[in-house]
Amino acid sequence: GSTGEKYREMSVAEFFAKNKELAGFANPTRALYQTIRELVENSLDATDAKGILPWIHISIRQIEGSEDKGGRPRYRVTVEDNGIGVPVTSMAMAFGKVLFSSKYVIRQTRGMYGLGVKAAILYGQMTAGTPVEVYSATKGSQYVYMMKLVIDVQRNEPRILERGEWNKRGSWHGTRVTLSLEGDWSRAKSKILEYIKRTAVIAPYAEIILETPDGEIYYFPRSTRKLPKPPRESKPHPHGVDIEQLKSMLRNTRASTLREFLVKEFQSIGDKTAQDFLERYGLDPGLKPRELLKKGREGLLRRLVDALMEYPFRAPKSDYLSPIGSDIIEIGLRRMFNPEWVGAVSRSPKAYRGHPFIVEVGIAYGGGIEPRSEPLLLRYANKIPLLYEEREDVSYKVVSSINWRQYNVDFPAPLVVLVHIASTKVPYKGVGKESVSDVPEIEAEIRNAVQEVARRLRLYLSRKAREEEAIRRSVTLAKYIPEVA
Amino acid sequence: GSTGEKYREMSVAEFFAKNKELAGFANPTRALYQTIRELVENSLDATDAKGILPWIHISIRQIEGSEDKGGRPRYRVTVEDNGIGVPVTSMAMAFGKVLFSSKYVIRQTRGMYGLGVKAAILYGQMTAGTPVEVYSATKGSQYVYMMKLVIDVQRNEPRILERGEWNKRGSWHGTRVTLSLEGDWSRAKSKILEYIKRTAVIAPYAEIILETPDGEIYYFPRSTRKLPKPPRESKPHPHGVDIEQLKSMLRNTRASTLREFLVKEFQSIGDKTAQDFLERYGLDPGLKPRELLKKGREGLLRRLVDALMEYPFRAPKSDYLSPIGSDIIEIGLRRMFNPEWVGAVSRSPKAYRGHPFIVEVGIAYGGGIEPRSEPLLLRYANKIPLLYEEREDVSYKVVSSINWRQYNVDFPAPLVVLVHIASTKVPYKGVGKESVSDVPEIEAEIRNAVQEVARRLRLYLSRKAREEEAIRRSVTLAKYIPEVA
Ligand SMILES: Nc1ncnc2c1ncn2[C@@H]1O[C@H](COP(=O)(O)OP(=O)(O)O)[C@@H](O)[C@H]1O
Ligand SMILES: Nc1ncnc2c1ncn2[C@@H]1O[C@H](COP(=O)(O)OP(=O)(O)O)[C@@H](O)[C@H]1O
Ligand SMILES: [Mg+2]
Ligand SMILES: [Mg+2]
Ligand SMILES: [Mg+2]
Repeated sequence: GSTGEKYREMSVAEFFAKNKELAGFANPTRALYQTIRELVENSLDATDAKGILPWIHISIRQIEGSEDKGGRPRYRVTVEDNGIGVPVTSMAMAFGKVLFSSKYVIRQTRGMYGLGVKAAILYGQMTAGTPVEVYSATKGSQYVYMMKLVIDVQRNEPRILERGEWNKRGSWHGTRVTLSLEGDWSRAKSKILEYIKRTAVIAPYAEIILETPDGEIYYFPRSTRKLPKPPRESKPHPHGVDIEQLKSMLRNTRASTLREFLVKEFQSIGDKTAQDFLERYGLDPGLKPRELLKKGREGLLRRLVDALMEYPFRAPKSDYLSPIGSDIIEIGLRRMFNPEWVGAVSRSPKAYRGHPFIVEVGIAYGGGIEPRSEPLLLRYANKIPLLYEEREDVSYKVVSSINWRQYNVDFPAPLVVLVHIASTKVPYKGVGKESVSDVPEIEAEIRNAVQEVARRLRLYLSRKAREEEAIRRSVTLAKYIPEVA
Repeated sequence: GSTGEKYREMSVAEFFAKNKELAGFANPTRALYQTIRELVENSLDATDAKGILPWIHISIRQIEGSEDKGGRPRYRVTVEDNGIGVPVTSMAMAFGKVLFSSKYVIRQTRGMYGLGVKAAILYGQMTAGTPVEVYSATKGSQYVYMMKLVIDVQRNEPRILERGEWNKRGSWHGTRVTLSLEGDWSRAKSKILEYIKRTAVIAPYAEIILETPDGEIYYFPRSTRKLPKPPRESKPHPHGVDIEQLKSMLRNTRASTLREFLVKEFQSIGDKTAQDFLERYGLDPGLKPRELLKKGREGLLRRLVDALMEYPFRAPKSDYLSPIGSDIIEIGLRRMFNPEWVGAVSRSPKAYRGHPFIVEVGIAYGGGIEPRSEPLLLRYANKIPLLYEEREDVSYKVVSSINWRQYNVDFPAPLVVLVHIASTKVPYKGVGKESVSDVPEIEAEIRNAVQEVARRLRLYLSRKAREEEAIRRSVTLAKYIPEVA
């Protein structure tokens, strides 16, 4: 029986090529912006998270003649860093296979989907038709490797067109990626500059250089050599585990009993907790992990997952997180706005569905800030500035719902609110990573954090008002004294 | 040189399992809703788009004992239809491989990503740990086939656990899908009912039955046997083609010259247009398609794509689209709200980046509509009701920016606005298909459509005001007459 339908499979590369707007490549403006973002985020993940003071060089050049004869403008983008590099054995895949990554672990990283640089490369292939060129050297290696490749869209595989290998001269390590794409520099410019500025502000330990197609050079110098503690990798927390994941953990564990399995494979489970947990749910501590995978044991497996979800295990650990810190947030806001008042807080860690997260909030008021009809909101997630889709973001939801009157702020007012969410799993709304979903736990923390800093602002503003009132009175008095005298 | 990083590949099944919120499965409420949606949308694609009057039976049952001992409630969902069925040769893949579809063609369908039912099945595996069960029979076949399968998450492949095959008794054809998942019926209920109601309203030719876990049965009878003309499949429009796509078309074409290639493989290019196009850009009509794929021809390929993008080809054809129609929109709005006034428009087709689209708008006013502080917005895309993420949608952007005063509407007002976008490619913001991006061409059309109907509403409202004023005057007169007399 035929249905007249044409059934076929699509590779994930073709999927994101056909639906490029999903990854943030909806048009030439967004595409140029997103390309810079993805490359810079990879460079930062390869430096600050690895104990290296970042040095990042970005160059965007219009390709000669790309606008002749009605052609659409195309740009050559190069981003170079001094990061850990990519081992030659993983290089072709890291840049040539969608869903290949070193970040599929429980750790706070900017990247998480294994898609970013490939989405940019695909967009380049679709609009400029040229390969990507990658140079990379790891720290330990004596060689620099080069590859020119395209992504075979139908197979989701790298097709290497050229490769090279050189002895290292100095001790250089890092990565340099060059690709060409259609773009709209005149429209993307302000967003790209804003993105880099906001990145520099919370990563004052980074040195960033941007060469623009207009021939300008923007230099963001390093202002401190103090690096944040790199985030550590962690094991899954029992509150976040599902049946599929549990099965795969049971298949791969070396533990020989259920009890050992719990202690070994999860965070927040020690010997005592494991014992109490198993007793409470009447589970056999000596059960062999593989037994749970046998046919007929589905019910037991479900009970175990439900129990893991329900039992009050310790919250996930926060040493897996790398917040910005209230000091750097305050310094950053001062530098950006030269305000009259600044305050910031870095809250203690919380968790949602087994994922630890930290919310940080900074508020700046007055001084060089232009009064606006609503707060100027600066959003960050895992140290990435988010510039698009503000109104869909949980931070916007909270900040716009706050009754600012209560904090002595009357709009139009010169008010800036910065919100940073750090997590081993930021719940982005889309793979383009532009807005964060309103997970109840995160929403509540943002509200607490904003209120905490806003109360300090209120104190400041009411003291200021009292002082002004006192001055006004003394002036009035002064004015009247002569008359009285 | 090692970097200490763990590089690995992830299958697209694992990707959407790990990031289930991307496909609309963020929590048990959304997951239950999204599961119903995806199954119903598949059933409608298999019926109304294929000339079959839809009969769809939905049943949701709570699984016995799933809430015992602190367990989380799980539901068994079954959706059965009288559609075209799935051929046995494609059955395992259609339900067991993410990114396998019969809708990867240029045609207006509800599904487009090849993901929906698999996302539901994956969620079921993760939260209930049970396989999906599919029965299907195609029209021509003498057999009914059954498969129980799970998705092998690591390989993105179906693993068939059981299969069956029976001789058909009657002439039944269609599909029945059953799966279990964790859900939250009490919270999802209103959204699911709303979804089905809104579906029924614009598909009055469908018969839909819903059995709920509470034991209720909702019956939506068929109120007409008139089916819309099924959308046809089309060829790509030259304005929407990119270099990768062009390459693949050149590789697969049977045309032996560039000119033949253009006429054969694209819509909106006939002999005369092809000739004019080739002349204008100085392209050789006799060039062999495969020549363009050779090394060193990248520049020519880019020129060709730019030219295809630029040349004023006829707009894409609209007979590939299947709008709802202004009559059905008006009937639907009357049925839902029993309003005082209704108007609707089905605009003529337009295009964005080579994709044809039609915008339809209906407005209802007064009568049974509750006054609200802003218009009640009903959004549809390719006949799918969209219920979540309203504020991110292009329709919300337009409708909330309209100055309703200008149309004699003062809020709070009893105003409903329905917007339908039909296209061979709806630019959803995410794979969960809940909101549409603000593509400038679509935004402009929505604005035009809303204004067109709103003007008619203004006419009605001002006539009504005049009449009321006249009555008021005559009453006043009547009141005074006795005194005068
Ligand atoms: N500049 C870089 N330095 C070191 N490694 C990199 C760099 N760029 C990419 N990579 C490697 O390539 C992988 C894939 O990158 P990408 O596609 O952007 O996905 P993601 O960043 O989400 O992992 C990264 O996980 C990383 O291991
Ligand atoms: N009820 C059904 N009747 C007929 N075919 C179906 C049905 N459900 C699913 N299919 C087939 O399975 C394919 C995959 O479905 P799905 O994963 O929902 O993706 P999509 O609907 O986007 O194609 C569909 O393209 C269709 O060919
Ligand atoms: Mg990345
Ligand atoms: Mg432990
Ligand atoms: Mg579908």
